[in-house]
Amino acid sequence: MSDSIHRYDEADRAAIYRVIRERRDVRSFVRTPVEPETLGRILESAHAAPSVGLSQPWRFLRITDPDMRVTIHALVQEERARTADALGGRSDEFLRLKVEGILDCGELIVAALLTGGTREIFGRRTLPEMDLASVACAIENLWLAARAEGLGLGWVSMFDPQALAALLRFPPDARPVAVLCLGHVQAFDPAPRLAIERWRQPRPLTDMLYENRWPEDAE
Amino acid sequence: MSDSIHRYDEADRAAIYRVIRERRDVRSFVRTPVEPETLGRILESAHAAPSVGLSQPWRFLRITDPDMRVTIHALVQEERARTADALGGRSDEFLRLKVEGILDCGELIVAALLTGGTREIFGRRTLPEMDLASVACAIENLWLAARAEGLGLGWVSMFDPQALAALLRFPPDARPVAVLCLGHVQAFDPAPRLAIERWRQPRPLTDMLYENRWPEDAE
Repeated sequence: MSDSIHRYDEADRAAIYRVIRERRDVRSFVRTPVEPETLGRILESAHAAPSVGLSQPWRFLRITDPDMRVTIHALVQEERARTADALGGRSDEFLRLKVEGILDCGELIVAALLTGGTREIFGRRTLPEMDLASVACAIENLWLAARAEGLGLGWVSMFDPQALAALLRFPPDARPVAVLCLGHVQAFDPAPRLAIERWRQPRPLTDMLYENRWPEDAE
Repeated sequence: MSDSIHRYDEADRAAIYRVIRERRDVRSFVRTPVEPETLGRILESAHAAPSVGLSQPWRFLRITDPDMRVTIHALVQEERARTADALGGRSDEFLRLKVEGILDCGELIVAALLTGGTREIFGRRTLPEMDLASVACAIENLWLAARAEGLGLGWVSMFDPQALAALLRFPPDARPVAVLCLGHVQAFDPAPRLAIERWRQPRPLTDMLYENRWPEDAE
């Protein structure tokens, strides 16, 4: 065993582990605009993501029309109410959580999947959902770059995808997978918001790590 | 517009953009073992990923049994042959590509999704596939941490998920989404392997970036 000659130096590794540790799902923003050059770097980071068969199935819609932003916010509010209903006993607790910052964030971006359908076979013949996985990798890159720039990002997935697709005039083979709220923030939380709000406590890695087979006594 | 007080300094930002730019899907490894402490840091990076409703739906199976590794390799070879058949005219070209390094990589890890089913509603009522997106974010974190440590990673998605699930004794609500080859390498490619091999050329970000609506003339 030995260190790789390709290993980054200690300061660079520390920066990378820091951003992975400090990334947060953000729902509270201040309205200071995001600099266009910063936004460009963040989007290029998303675009540098891996993709199955080099298919690059991500598309990003920058929402600059204020009316469109208001309509998207309304769509999310509708689904928030439906989710609350579906949660039954935890409905009130859920409604006290802040789940999005659509009206306040500096930039609103809808991330879409242009599905590979049956055209894209490479790495997808038995796992067609790998195209969505590629878009998720792009969003994670975007998230980390945003955090390095001091910007918060929130991934909102509470919306009716068909209604949002119709609003944004998507073609049949595309679907929205994220409403991304990006922008300046007052502060970054020291822990995931849902843990701070006692919605749920994260579990340690040791619970998720097995050897060779799924253990019979796993949760 | 102004810089955020939460922005990382120039050196840290450069390190983060560097690793995003230099990450590669790797298929050629040298057999030097991966240090256990390094592996631990890389897996903790995966575990620091965002997850829908803080559900942490990822599970990682470290494959240490050499016979199991050989069997997984055989499963991938079977699907590689089926993919080649399905590709028709590009079959021979596809078979010349190296698509995995399962027998040579220092560590073999199977990444699994423990699906939220209908239990996990938060952020998933209308977009149930968000649990897979969370696992993909975890794998992207893992990928970046590995690159910073000088280690290559390849995400193999050519396998029959039911056969692999049976082999690894998965419960009904879990499924494998990645065979991850992790390990030391001779060199990192300067560009995606599929571009170097002229399988496909990547497109620029400008092709993937729209404003407010999907353009009628989009590809």
